[in-house]
This record gives sequence, structure tokens and C-alpha cells, in this order.
Amino acid sequence: MKSDLDPLMAARELQAIVVVGDELYSAGRDYLSNGARITGGLVIKRRGAAPVLVVNPMEIEEARDSGLQAISWYDLGWAQLLEENDGDRDSTQVGMWQRALQRLQVPPGRIGIYGTAAVHRFIELLPELGNLEGYDFCGERGMTLLDEAAMTRDAAEMQRIRRVAAGTNATLRATWDFIASHRAVDDIVCDAQGDALTIGALRRFVRRTLLDYDLEDTGMILAQGRDAGFPHSRGQDDQPLRCGQTLVFDLFPREHGGGYHHDVTRTWCPGHLPDEIADIYETVSRAFQVALDAWDEPGQPARELQEAVLDFFEGAGYPTPRSEPGSEVGYVHSLGHGLGMAIHERPSLSHTSDDCLQVGNVISIEPGLYYPERGFGLRLEDTLTIDESGALVPLTDFHKRVLLPLQG
Amino acid sequence: MKSDLDPLMAARELQAIVVVGDELYSAGRDYLSNGARITGGLVIKRRGAAPVLVVNPMEIEEARDSGLQAISWYDLGWAQLLEENDGDRDSTQVGMWQRALQRLQVPPGRIGIYGTAAVHRFIELLPELGNLEGYDFCGERGMTLLDEAAMTRDAAEMQRIRRVAAGTNATLRATWDFIASHRAVDDIVCDAQGDALTIGALRRFVRRTLLDYDLEDTGMILAQGRDAGFPHSRGQDDQPLRCGQTLVFDLFPREHGGGYHHDVTRTWCPGHLPDEIADIYETVSRAFQVALDAWDEPGQPARELQEAVLDFFEGAGYPTPRSEPGSEVGYVHSLGHGLGMAIHERPSLSHTSDDCLQVGNVISIEPGLYYPERGFGLRLEDTLTIDESGALVPLTDFHKRVLLPLQG
Repeated sequence: MKSDLDPLMAARELQAIVVVGDELYSAGRDYLSNGARITGGLVIKRRGAAPVLVVNPMEIEEARDSGLQAISWYDLGWAQLLEENDGDRDSTQVGMWQRALQRLQVPPGRIGIYGTAAVHRFIELLPELGNLEGYDFCGERGMTLLDEAAMTRDAAEMQRIRRVAAGTNATLRATWDFIASHRAVDDIVCDAQGDALTIGALRRFVRRTLLDYDLEDTGMILAQGRDAGFPHSRGQDDQPLRCGQTLVFDLFPREHGGGYHHDVTRTWCPGHLPDEIADIYETVSRAFQVALDAWDEPGQPARELQEAVLDFFEGAGYPTPRSEPGSEVGYVHSLGHGLGMAIHERPSLSHTSDDCLQVGNVISIEPGLYYPERGFGLRLEDTLTIDESGALVPLTDFHKRVLLPLQG
Repeated sequence: MKSDLDPLMAARELQAIVVVGDELYSAGRDYLSNGARITGGLVIKRRGAAPVLVVNPMEIEEARDSGLQAISWYDLGWAQLLEENDGDRDSTQVGMWQRALQRLQVPPGRIGIYGTAAVHRFIELLPELGNLEGYDFCGERGMTLLDEAAMTRDAAEMQRIRRVAAGTNATLRATWDFIASHRAVDDIVCDAQGDALTIGALRRFVRRTLLDYDLEDTGMILAQGRDAGFPHSRGQDDQPLRCGQTLVFDLFPREHGGGYHHDVTRTWCPGHLPDEIADIYETVSRAFQVALDAWDEPGQPARELQEAVLDFFEGAGYPTPRSEPGSEVGYVHSLGHGLGMAIHERPSLSHTSDDCLQVGNVISIEPGLYYPERGFGLRLEDTLTIDESGALVPLTDFHKRVLLPLQG
């Protein structure tokens, strides 16, 4: 968690970290800045000290609202530096980094650069940063310092995560009830006037409902039939909702403007349930339970949960990423992933993962089976956390029924 | 525009460009990929050829929907490479780049890396990319190839940009009408039941309205009184809307899920208009007209419009970024900016800009005056385009009245 940052920096022999971002929400910068509503600037954390925001003067009030110290470009002499650099804003940035590090009394040594930003610019600025006396800039690959810190959540984070879960659960209920208020006409889901309910209209309904809980859609999947057979197909807005077809509804909203996520998938069959779908749904439900049953105790390798599910699916005759890497049918992905201020974080629950599960993790578990050419795909997913007692407990609270009955 | 990419690559002696992105919407990758709904992967454009998407197999259908050629990681032998690299996903990525460039028959030479992604990872991968035989990877600073291409819009882009403008205009009208349906109680804007209208409730109304046009809020400003005096203060959701105070409403939505933007600001004073505000509003309105009057013809330096506005404000006795760099009162920012798939693009309309204005530009013009300690700030902004005839024409279509009358 955040309180681990200093030891994590010490282990990497970093005197400070500089966390950058672009104009949009940027998970790393947001994590360090207490969610300050800034669209530019840096967060600098000297080892042993609280993060400090270095921002555009137009955003100084937003930066201060975070409760952290904030310095503006102007305070650091931006205008003068720009003149000295003949209007070159990139070289001016390098000068600002130097002044900020000095102002924060960061001792000479290694400085880690982290965050999501314009790669093309950093590639060109690296040599100039390398010329700054006393500092040696580096990045990080694999499991980074921020990945490691973010894998476990403190109490304040869990409070926000639970609020996002509550809004998502309510949205699931509202969406089920909304579809259930329709009726079938020639196997098409229609409203009382006989107009078809399209995927696009349903998507708008979900987005509006999320807003009631100050959540925002980040690309939900509402894919039916053949589309549902491709795990990341988002679905086609002009299609009407059809009875007896699988609708994969994968919802992964976040706090509006950027923040914590929830991740849940349900597969619904409106009106009636073909036997073939019922059978496969039963298998996926059992796979979900197999994953839960494989949970043992904190410290357990995450891959063991996926391995149990792989054993189960392979035993039932389905291809998996272990038995047939590259297969586009059967079970084609990993079991889940950590989530937080980004939707995909560590730990990874793939069978090639070296990550271990720990108290304070927030993870998804999401087995599925995909057969696009047979016209269906199914997935079931909850977000769960490992609590203080070492139990794996769901944050998602919504039933897993597949048949969604319509109005008589 | 996009059709300029090949000559722009030739001018930089680039054999190909590789455009990366992170999981979220990424303007550069979206621009090259026709908005493919992918959350990972690369876009590679060989000079003289159409862009090709290299994606996660789970997203191959989404990638193909773009109309561009798509290759999956599995097609390139990802599983085998991962094994060869002992499970190191970063080194595997480097191997994938090599295979993808070979598959697309990119001749040896310079390859430009562009886009928004994890900087820490690229810093560490650069040396390995440098070892790929035959290819020399570089970034770009200052005005990049993508900046330059995106500065002018083709007909297909203009169609989308006009649709975003129409939805934004409709949202402005609906928001004005919504506030106007309220009445004043003790100088607080209240509904028919006498309950105060809060900034938070108004923000939710705007977000819901945007959804009706498939637009999404990317951080609108709804700041009143002192908050309005800080250009990027987003406003406080728990505050009730107050009569006789300036409400700066800066709306810059985009196509839902990522895409083209619109950018507009209105300053409204609900209920009644203090003389001091009326006077300053008149000055800002005149500054807006000064900017339009300074427009001459395509090829004109963008800074000339800002210089005209600086002359005007300075002549009227207000501090500006030219007369008092670093001032936090008066006119404290540049006149405007290009906008497209990102909210801030080139050309820059600052007085230090070297950019020229051209046919096909889409820009904002947004003069303002800020006095937080006097309890107000005002800004007026339209999005405009330079059309084929060389005229600077607004895409924003909403009146600029400041007094917003309430119900008797």
C-alpha cells in the first residue's frame, strides 16, 4: 500500500520518484496526488517525505485541495527558463525538473521516472535529463514500484472501492429490472409499444444509471450471440436484443473523472434458455466455484487458482491457454487480475504469473467459454478482496441467474 | 491531415512509425487506427502503406472493424517468444516489434515511436530496441509528426467534429433552460420545492444531457465566485448556485469512449447582474471580438490574434502574460489552442507561439479576466474552424448573454 512506498524506494536505491501524466486521468499520478484534479504537472516524492505537486499556476488551487504541498511552474521561474531556452518548452521542462528536485532538497543519486505520458517526448528528453548534474534517471520494467504498492489497499482506499462496488451492484440490478420490464415479440426484446430494445439503447441506460452513483463507463461490453464469443468485443449498438441468445454484460466503471474501478460480468439469456447454453453456463458456473475453492491462504501463488480452473476445463474437454495456446475457442484468457486506479493491475491470475495473493488485494475472477462460430460466449466475473482474516470475499453482490424472464 | 503522413514521414526520414497507447483511450493510437476499440497493441504505419493494427487476439474483431489490416500477437508467435524469454513480457514485446516490422516488410532505417504509454517501461526497453538489427528507433519533441498531421482536418473528421459541436450546443441550451426553470430564494437558485440547486446537481444534469448525444464529460468546469477566478478550478459540488455571482461553465466533451472534442465556455450570472460584473463582462466580450477582428488570412501567425488581445487588455489596464508574466490576476493565459482527438493540440495561440493558422484548423478562442480575491472570474470561449474560403467560422452556436433570468 501507499505506506510501503519508502521501503520500496529504498530497495531500488531511489532518492526520489517523479510521476508524470498526460492531460487525461493518469492512474499513477492520481494515486500519488490524492486524486488532485490537475491536467498537467508532476508529482515528486522524495524518499521519506510526502509527495509534492509541481503544477501549472492555473491549477494551483486544485493541487492544494489534495492536501499536499503544491508548487507552481511560475514559482520555479518558468518564464525566465523559457527565455533562456529560446522558447523551447521541452528543454524548459528539463530545467524545471532540475529546479524542482533542488527545491525539494533531493540528494544526488537515482531518480525513478514513472507514469503514463508522451513516450516520443521522453525518448528525446532522456539524454538531456542525463546531463543534469548529480542525478541519474531510470525507469522500471516488470513489476514496478507503483505496481507493488498498489497491489494492497489501505482502509481509505477500501472505503472508496466499496462505494464503487455499491454503485455497480445497484446498476446491475437496475439493468436486469429494465430488461425484465420488456416483452418478447418474435424473439426480439421489445418495450410496451412494441419497439425493439437495441444494444445501443441498453448501453445508454447503463451509462445514465452509473451517473446516478457518480461512476462512469470506461467501455462496457454488451455483446450478444456471435459477438459474445470474442471476449473483448463491445457489441453492436444497432442490434436489437434477442431472446435465447447469450448477452455478455461486462461492466468495469470507475469513479467519475478517474479513480477506483469495479469489474463484473454477467451473462444473460433474455426470454428463454436453449439447452446448449444452459449446459455451458453450468460448466462456467462450476469453473467459478473451482477458482474459489482453490483459494487457500495469503501468500499463495495466484497461478494456482488459474491452474485449478485449467484442470477443470481441460478435464471437461475444453481447450485452454495452457493446452492449446492461441486457441480462439474454449477458455481463452487468464482467470483474472488485480484492479484499482487502473482496470488491469497486479497480481496477474494467469498460469505464467509469479505473483502471490495477499491480504488487501482486490482482484477479479472471471472464467468463460467462447464459441463465436456456434453463436455464443459466456463469462462470469466478480470483484473480490482478500480480507484481514485471509478470506477471499466478493465485493460484487448480484445473483448469477442466466435466464432473464421477460413480461408475459 | 492524415493524407500528409507520408510526406511528413519522408521529411523525417522515417521508414515507419509505431504508435503505442495504454489501456485507456489514447489520442495518437485512435487517430491512426480509425478509432478501433482496442485497449492494447500497436499501430504500425510503414511509409507509403496504410496503418496495420497489432493486437491482443481477444480484440482482433474490434481491430478488424476499423477497416484496417489486423494481426494478432498469436499470429506473430507470442507464446513461443514468451517461452524463449523465460516469461519476461517486456522482452517479449521487443521481440514482437521486431517480428511485426519484418512481417510488414519495413525496410531498415529509422522508426519513430509515438504515443501515450508507460514511460518507465519505455525508458528501460529503449536499449533492447536499440539492439534490433537494421532499425534505429527515435522519438520526437516540439511539433511532432502527429501534431502536424492533426492540425488540419479532412472532410470525414469535420463531419464528426460538427456532430460533437451540435451535441454540445444542444447541451448548452438545455443547461441554460434548466437553470432558468429555477427561482431565487434569498439569492440562492432553488427549484419549485424551494430546494437549492447545487453545483453537483447541475454537473450531473450536464453529464446526463451529454449522454443523450453520445458525448462524455472529460472534466467540465462549473466554478462560481472566487473559484471562477482560477481558470482551471472545477468548482465545488456541495455549493448551491448563487444569484449575482459569476458561474464559469467550461464544457469540453468528447465522443463517448474517446474521439473528437468541442470546447466552449460561457459565464452566467443567475438572477441579477452586479454592475462590476457587467462592466468586466463587456470588456471580455470586446476582447473576444478583438481576436476575431485580428484574423486576416490562412498562413497568418497564430500569435497575432493573441497579440491583438494583449494590446487590448493592456490598453484597458489589465495585467497579461506578456506585461506581467506570472500574474495570477487579470488575463492569465493564452488565447486558445487547436483541439481534436485531444483537447489541447496545435496550433497554440500564445504570444510565444511560432504556429501559423491554416485552412482546416479547429481552434478555441477564449479570452478571460480573473480576480479571485474580488470573488469572480469570467471567460468566453467558442470553438471555430478556418473554412475553405479562409474564413474563421464558429462551430459553437449559442448566445453569449451573461444575465441568466430566473422564474419570477
